[in-house]
Amino acid sequence: MLSEEKVFKDPVHGYIYVNDPLIWALINTKEMQRLRRIRQLGTSYVTYPGGEHSRFSHSLGVYEVVRQIVQAFARNGYPWPSEMDRLVMVAGLLHDIGHAPFSHALEKVIGLRHEVWSERIILDPTTEVHQALEAYDPGLAKDVAAIIDKSHPSKLAVSLVSGQLDADRLDYLMRDSIFTGVDYGKFDLARIIRIMRPHEGRIVVKRSGLHTVEAYLLARYFMYWQVYFHPVSRSAEVILKAILRRAKDLVDQGQDPAPTHFALKQLFHNQLDMASYCALDDTVLFNAFNVWQYGPDKILADLCRRFLDRHLFSYTDAPGHDEDAYQAMVSKVRAAGFDPSYYVAIDETATVYYDYYLGADHNGSGDGALFLWDENQQQLIEMSRLSEPIQAIARDRQALRRLYFPPEVLTHPVHG
Amino acid sequence: MLSEEKVFKDPVHGYIYVNDPLIWALINTKEMQRLRRIRQLGTSYVTYPGGEHSRFSHSLGVYEVVRQIVQAFARNGYPWPSEMDRLVMVAGLLHDIGHAPFSHALEKVIGLRHEVWSERIILDPTTEVHQALEAYDPGLAKDVAAIIDKSHPSKLAVSLVSGQLDADRLDYLMRDSIFTGVDYGKFDLARIIRIMRPHEGRIVVKRSGLHTVEAYLLARYFMYWQVYFHPVSRSAEVILKAILRRAKDLVDQGQDPAPTHFALKQLFHNQLDMASYCALDDTVLFNAFNVWQYGPDKILADLCRRFLDRHLFSYTDAPGHDEDAYQAMVSKVRAAGFDPSYYVAIDETATVYYDYYLGADHNGSGDGALFLWDENQQQLIEMSRLSEPIQAIARDRQALRRLYFPPEVLTHPVHG
Amino acid sequence: MLSEEKVFKDPVHGYIYVNDPLIWALINTKEMQRLRRIRQLGTSYVTYPGGEHSRFSHSLGVYEVVRQIVQAFARNGYPWPSEMDRLVMVAGLLHDIGHAPFSHALEKVIGLRHEVWSERIILDPTTEVHQALEAYDPGLAKDVAAIIDKSHPSKLAVSLVSGQLDADRLDYLMRDSIFTGVDYGKFDLARIIRIMRPHEGRIVVKRSGLHTVEAYLLARYFMYWQVYFHPVSRSAEVILKAILRRAKDLVDQGQDPAPTHFALKQLFHNQLDMASYCALDDTVLFNAFNVWQYGPDKILADLCRRFLDRHLFSYTDAPGHDEDAYQAMVSKVRAAGFDPSYYVAIDETATVYYDYYLGADHNGSGDGALFLWDENQQQLIEMSRLSEPIQAIARDRQALRRLYFPPEVLTHPVHG
Amino acid sequence: MLSEEKVFKDPVHGYIYVNDPLIWALINTKEMQRLRRIRQLGTSYVTYPGGEHSRFSHSLGVYEVVRQIVQAFARNGYPWPSEMDRLVMVAGLLHDIGHAPFSHALEKVIGLRHEVWSERIILDPTTEVHQALEAYDPGLAKDVAAIIDKSHPSKLAVSLVSGQLDADRLDYLMRDSIFTGVDYGKFDLARIIRIMRPHEGRIVVKRSGLHTVEAYLLARYFMYWQVYFHPVSRSAEVILKAILRRAKDLVDQGQDPAPTHFALKQLFHNQLDMASYCALDDTVLFNAFNVWQYGPDKILADLCRRFLDRHLFSYTDAPGHDEDAYQAMVSKVRAAGFDPSYYVAIDETATVYYDYYLGADHNGSGDGALFLWDENQQQLIEMSRLSEPIQAIARDRQALRRLYFPPEVLTHPVHG
Repeated sequence: MLSEEKVFKDPVHGYIYVNDPLIWALINTKEMQRLRRIRQLGTSYVTYPGGEHSRFSHSLGVYEVVRQIVQAFARNGYPWPSEMDRLVMVAGLLHDIGHAPFSHALEKVIGLRHEVWSERIILDPTTEVHQALEAYDPGLAKDVAAIIDKSHPSKLAVSLVSGQLDADRLDYLMRDSIFTGVDYGKFDLARIIRIMRPHEGRIVVKRSGLHTVEAYLLARYFMYWQVYFHPVSRSAEVILKAILRRAKDLVDQGQDPAPTHFALKQLFHNQLDMASYCALDDTVLFNAFNVWQYGPDKILADLCRRFLDRHLFSYTDAPGHDEDAYQAMVSKVRAAGFDPSYYVAIDETATVYYDYYLGADHNGSGDGALFLWDENQQQLIEMSRLSEPIQAIARDRQALRRLYFPPEVLTHPVHG
Repeated sequence: MLSEEKVFKDPVHGYIYVNDPLIWALINTKEMQRLRRIRQLGTSYVTYPGGEHSRFSHSLGVYEVVRQIVQAFARNGYPWPSEMDRLVMVAGLLHDIGHAPFSHALEKVIGLRHEVWSERIILDPTTEVHQALEAYDPGLAKDVAAIIDKSHPSKLAVSLVSGQLDADRLDYLMRDSIFTGVDYGKFDLARIIRIMRPHEGRIVVKRSGLHTVEAYLLARYFMYWQVYFHPVSRSAEVILKAILRRAKDLVDQGQDPAPTHFALKQLFHNQLDMASYCALDDTVLFNAFNVWQYGPDKILADLCRRFLDRHLFSYTDAPGHDEDAYQAMVSKVRAAGFDPSYYVAIDETATVYYDYYLGADHNGSGDGALFLWDENQQQLIEMSRLSEPIQAIARDRQALRRLYFPPEVLTHPVHG
Repeated sequence: MLSEEKVFKDPVHGYIYVNDPLIWALINTKEMQRLRRIRQLGTSYVTYPGGEHSRFSHSLGVYEVVRQIVQAFARNGYPWPSEMDRLVMVAGLLHDIGHAPFSHALEKVIGLRHEVWSERIILDPTTEVHQALEAYDPGLAKDVAAIIDKSHPSKLAVSLVSGQLDADRLDYLMRDSIFTGVDYGKFDLARIIRIMRPHEGRIVVKRSGLHTVEAYLLARYFMYWQVYFHPVSRSAEVILKAILRRAKDLVDQGQDPAPTHFALKQLFHNQLDMASYCALDDTVLFNAFNVWQYGPDKILADLCRRFLDRHLFSYTDAPGHDEDAYQAMVSKVRAAGFDPSYYVAIDETATVYYDYYLGADHNGSGDGALFLWDENQQQLIEMSRLSEPIQAIARDRQALRRLYFPPEVLTHPVHG
Repeated sequence: MLSEEKVFKDPVHGYIYVNDPLIWALINTKEMQRLRRIRQLGTSYVTYPGGEHSRFSHSLGVYEVVRQIVQAFARNGYPWPSEMDRLVMVAGLLHDIGHAPFSHALEKVIGLRHEVWSERIILDPTTEVHQALEAYDPGLAKDVAAIIDKSHPSKLAVSLVSGQLDADRLDYLMRDSIFTGVDYGKFDLARIIRIMRPHEGRIVVKRSGLHTVEAYLLARYFMYWQVYFHPVSRSAEVILKAILRRAKDLVDQGQDPAPTHFALKQLFHNQLDMASYCALDDTVLFNAFNVWQYGPDKILADLCRRFLDRHLFSYTDAPGHDEDAYQAMVSKVRAAGFDPSYYVAIDETATVYYDYYLGADHNGSGDGALFLWDENQQQLIEMSRLSEPIQAIARDRQALRRLYFPPEVLTHPVHG
C-alpha cells in the first residue's frame, strides 16, 4: 500500500483513489501519459464543445469503477477471489493503452488495430508499462494482456473489463455525458455497482435492479443517437479519413507531404515500431494537418483546412443502398471540380444496443446477454424477457447511412 | 436574426444560444476554431485530469454570459443602450482571440502579449474574423478592438468584458470549477446576472445581493489556491518555460532543433507574421516537444521528455528572497550534472483577489472596486466596507514563491 | 407588472420568477398557502425520506414552466396569442388548488373529487382566490376554471396544463425525481421547452427532438415503477384507506372518534362546506390519527399506530384475480385475530405510460397522442411510429396487483 | 450484520447504507418516526418553498456521515477504537430524538429543552428507542446519552457528533442547502471526511486541507445570512411565539382554547409526560392553529390565521437598543387596535461562525477551535492563524436585531 492514499479530483466520480503503488507507477508511465493527448471522443468536439476530455481521464475512471466493484464484492461477501483485485484494476486502467489518435479513423485507413497494440505494449519489454508490471509482480503482464484480449481463463474477470455491464462502458457513458453536457447518458452508477454480483462465471444483477439496468441500457441508446452517431461529428470523421487516405496515396506515389514527425513517416510507410507507435497522439496529427494545409498538394491542403477550420461536408440520409444516387453525387462533385475519391463518402454507423444472442451457446446465454438473478425463483432471467423497452431495442441493428459531400456542390446546401 | 436559433450544449450554462448571424459567422472563422486547440488552463491538466477544456468553449461561455446580462438589462428596463448589445456580445466572444498556446509561458519567454495579438487579429484585413465583422457591420472591428483594449468611451461596455464582475471571470470560474471537479469555484451565476445593473457608467449590484457577490469573490480566492497556483501544475509550467528558453537559446546559437512547423521557426527567429501566429496552437508545441525528445540536444530532449511524461520538478516553498538557499540549490543541481540555467527556477505567483483601490481616483472609486447600490440610502457602498471576509482578502497581495529543481538532486525528494 | 420582480429559490428550476401582480396576489391567498400543508407525493415519504415536498412548491413550478413555455413561444414568433399568457400561467398555478390531503386515498373513501373542488374554489365568491382573480381581471375566474376542467375553447391553452406534454408533468417528474433522489425522472427540460410549438391547436415538437421526448416519456415509465407504484408506499396508502374507512364506519354507527377538527367531522358526516374543505390538510389528518391511536376503538387505534410508526402491511404480488388466494388470506387474517375488512386488501395500480389512441378521432389523432413536426415532409408524425422504445411502452396498460396483510399473520413474513 | 444491506435513497448522500440491525431497529421506532413530522428548518419554508424536509432525513444523514467517518478512520489505520463505531453511529442517528416541533420557539415559550428530552427518551425504559438499545446491547443507552450530553469520557467520540466539525453540521449545511436550493452551503464533504483524523482526543484535519475547511466554515457563514436568519422566516417565528404565548396566557386565565390534542393540553398546563411529549409534532401544532383560527379569542384567532396564511409581520432593522423607537412602535400598534404584548416584538438572532476561544483552556485550545495538523512541523495550528477570511469571521458575534409589527400599522408598510 502507498504510505498515503493518492487521489485525483474527477467530475464523474468525485474522487479517484489510488492505494496500490503499482497503479501509481503505471499511471506515471509514458505510455499512460500519452493518453492525455488522445481525445476520448475523437471528432465529437466539433459538435459538443465540452467533449474535449482525454482517454487518460477515462482510463482512470475505468480503474476507479473496477476498484469500487471489487470493493463491493468484498463487502458483500460475494464469491470473488480478492487476489484478482489487482489484476482487474490494472486491466481496467490499461484497457485503452494501445489506442491510436482518432483511433477508429486511423485504424480503418492504416490498418492498425488498437487491441493488438494494447497487448503489444503490455508485453513488450521495452515499455515502461511492461517494466512496471514485471517489477511489481512478475508474470502479471501476461495475465493483464489475457484479460484485455479476453483469453484469460476467468470469464468473470474478463467481463469486468469487457462485457455487457463492464467498467469501461459504465465510465464512458457517464463521462461522455457529463463532459458533453448531454444528460441522457446518466444512470445510477452507485446502485449498479451495489447490485452487481458474480454468479457462475458471469456478472449478474439482482432482479430488483431491473429498472436501474434498463436505464443504463437506454443511456447507451441515447448516447449513440445524440453523440456517437452525430452527423456533424461524422462529417469531421469523413474528412479525417479522406486526409489520411490522401496522405497515404501521396506517400505511395513517392510524394510524401512535408515531414512533421518521424512516427508519421513510419506510419504511412507501414514501418511503425513500438517507440514510434507510442509517440503517436492527436497533437502529432493536428500539427501535420496544420503544416499540410499550406503544402503543395491542393487536395490534401484543402481537406486539412476543412478539418481544422470546421468547414465540414454536408450530408443527406442515404438509408438504402441506392447506387444511382451515389453515382449522381459523384458526378456532381466531379462537375464542381472536386476529386470524388476524397470528396464523396458513404458513412455507415451501426450498433446493437443490446444483443442478448451475441455469442450465445445452445442455452441461448451468450456473452451479449445480461441476466437478472431472481432470488425467489433461484434462477437467472435474461433481461429483455422482463423489460418491454429493452425488448424493443434488443437485437435490433441500428444502421445509419449518410452520403457526405462538399457544401459547394449545391447552390443551396442541404445542411449547414 | 438567424432563421433558426442555433444552440450549443454546454456543461456550464446548459445551452448557449445564438440568434445573431454575425455571432454565428465569427464562431466559424478559422481564428475562433484555433481556440479549440488551446487549453484554457495551460498545464493544470497535469494535476486535474478533467481540466482539458479549451479556450473555444470558454469564449462561447463568455459570449453567453454577456448575452444573458444584456437581456436582463432589457427585461428590467435598466439604462443600457440596446444598440450596444451586439458590440459587447462580439467582444465577449473574441476577447481571447489572440491567446497563444500555453500563453503565459510563451508570452514570458518569447515576448508576445496576447492582448496585442487580439487587437491585431480583429483589425487585420486578412483575417476571417475581421472580414466577418466588417461584412456584417462596417466599422465594428475598431469598436470591438476598443472594448478589448479598454479604450472604448463606454466604460460600462468595457466593464462587461473586463472588470471586477465581468463575463470573462463569471464564465471561467464556473467552467474551470466544473471541468476540474473542484467545487469551490461555483457561485450563483443566475442571481448575479439578475442583481447586476448599470449605474453611472459602471456595473453595480443591489445591496441585497451582498452575500452572492461575496461568494463570487471567495470563489476566486479558492480557485487561485486550489487550481491556478497549484504547485504541481506550476512545475509543468516551469519545465515548459525551460524548454522554450533552451530552444530559443539553441536557435540563437544557430543550432535550430528539428523543424516541425514553420510558425515555430518564425517564432524562435522573432519573425512571426499574422498567418503563422494564427497557426500556432498547443498541438504545434506538443508535436515539437514530441520530436525534440529524440533530438541531439541532451538538455532539450530531457526537458521535453519530462514535460510529456509528467516527470516533473520537485519544489520547496521559498517565501523569502533567500539568495543563499537559491545558490545552494544551484550548486546541488550542478553537482548532479544538470545545467542550473534550465534546471533550477524560482516560480512566483501572485494575485490580489479583490483590489478596491486599483485605479482609484481621488474619490477612492477605482476600476478595481465593486460597489453595492443601497436603495434606501440611494448611494453606492464599496463592498469591503460591508463584508468582513472580503475586507480580509482585499488589497492583500497573495504571493507564493517556490524553488523548483529535478527530484534526482535529492536522494529523498521533498515532494513526489 | 410588479415594481420589482419577485423570485423564489427552487431546487428544480433554480429560480421561479414572478412579475405579474395577480400571480403574486394568488400565491398569497389562504387557499394557495394551504397547499404548503399537503405533501405532493402522499405516502411516498415512507420509502423516500426526501420526498416530503408539498403541492405548493409543485404549483409554483407548474406556473414557472408555463411561463417559460409562453416566453419561448413569443421569442420564436410562434402562433400563440400572448393575451392568453396570464390565463395559462394562472391556470398552471391553480391547477391543484382543490387537492385534498393524501388526495387519492381520501377521494376514494369519502367520494371527493379534487378536480370538482378546484373548480368550486376558483368560482366561489367567498374564496380569496376568486376574489383576487376578479379584482384583477373580471371574468377571469370562469376562464381559469374552463382551462382546468378542459372545457375551454382553446385546446392549445388546455393542453399546456393538461396534455401529453404539459407543464404539470414536466414539473412533477423533475421535482419528484430531485426530492426523492431517484435520478430516473430527469430529462432535458430546457430543450423540451425550446422544441415545443403550437400547431393547429395542439402542442407538437420538432422531429429533431425525438430523443428528448423519448427520454421524457421514459422518465414517466421509470418514475411509476420506482416511486409512484412502490409497494411500501402503497402499503402505507392501504393502511390510510383502512383508517378512513374505519372512522367513517364508526361515524355511521354513531360512534364518532374523538373530535380533533370540525372539518373532519363535516367530512365524515358528508357535510363539507367550502370553508371546511379549505381547512383540510395533511396536518389535520395526522393530528387526528395521533389522537385516535390512544382512542377506545381497538381497530382504529391500531391502524393509526401502524400508519404513524410505519409498521406497515406486508404484501405478495397477486397478478391474477385469484379469489381462492384472497379468501385463504382472509381466513388467515381472521384466525390471527384481525378483522379482514380492514386488514386485508388488494391494491391495484395501473397506468399507461403513453396512449396515443386515447381520445382518438377517426384520424387516429387523439388527445393522448404526441406528434412530431417533420419540417422537410411538412407533416406530423405520431411519435411511437418513430421510436421503438416508445412503441414498446405505448398503449400497454401496466397493472400491478398486490395483496396486503399484517406481517403478524405469518410466522415468517414475506416482506419486511 | 443484516442479511441484506438496507439502503435509503437520499438527495444529499446518494445512498444511506444500513448494515447494523440495531440501526435498522432504531430507525423503526416510533420516536424516530415522529421526526418525520418535524420540519428540520422550522419556519424557513415560508421563504424557501423547498425547505420542507424533516428531522428524520437529517438524522439518517448524520448517521451516514458518522458511518463514513469511522470507515475512513479504519481504512487509513488512524487511532480510533473500532468498537466505538456502533456507539457513535447510534448517537448520530439519535442526536435530535428529543426535538420538539418548531423547537426553538416552543422551547423559549414553554421552557422545554430538547437536549434534556433527548436524554430522557434514550434512558426511559418505556420508549421503543431505549428498548431497542438495551435489547441489542445492554448498557448502551447510557453511553449514547453520555455522547449526546457530552459527558462521555471519550472527547473524540463526543466531537464526532457535537464539535466544530461534527457530523451534525456536515449534514445539515449540505442538506439545508440542497433542499432550499441555496448553493452557498455546499462544500467538499468527501474530502473533509478524507482529511479528518483523530489526534490526541480531538478531530483535526491535515494542513493541506486548509481551504476545504475554510469553505466549510464559510458555508456556515452564508447559510446563517441567507437562510437561518432570514427576516421573513423570522417573522413567521415571531408570530409562532406570539401564538404560543397567547395560548399559554389563556390557559393560565382558565380560558383554554379548543382542545385538539391531549398532549397540547398537558404542554400548556406544564404536565407533559413521556408519552405525550413523544406525541407532539408539527402537525399537532398546525392542526391546533387551524382550529383556533375560528375560535372565540380574537387575538389567538388572528395570529393563527396570519401564521397559516403567511400574512406575516413587517420589520425594520433595529440594530441598537433604542428604547424610544420601540416604545413609539408600541404606541402605533396600540393605536391601530392591536395588543402590543403579542403584536410588537424585538427579534434578535446571533451566532459566532467560528469561535476558537470557546471553552479554551490555558493553552488557548478550547472545544471551539479547529486545528490543522502540519505533518512537516509535527504540530497543530489553530486554523484562523492560517486563513485571513476565517480570521475575519472568527470570534465575531453576528447579532441582528429587528423590530416586528403588523403591516397594518403603517399606511405604507416598510417591507412586504
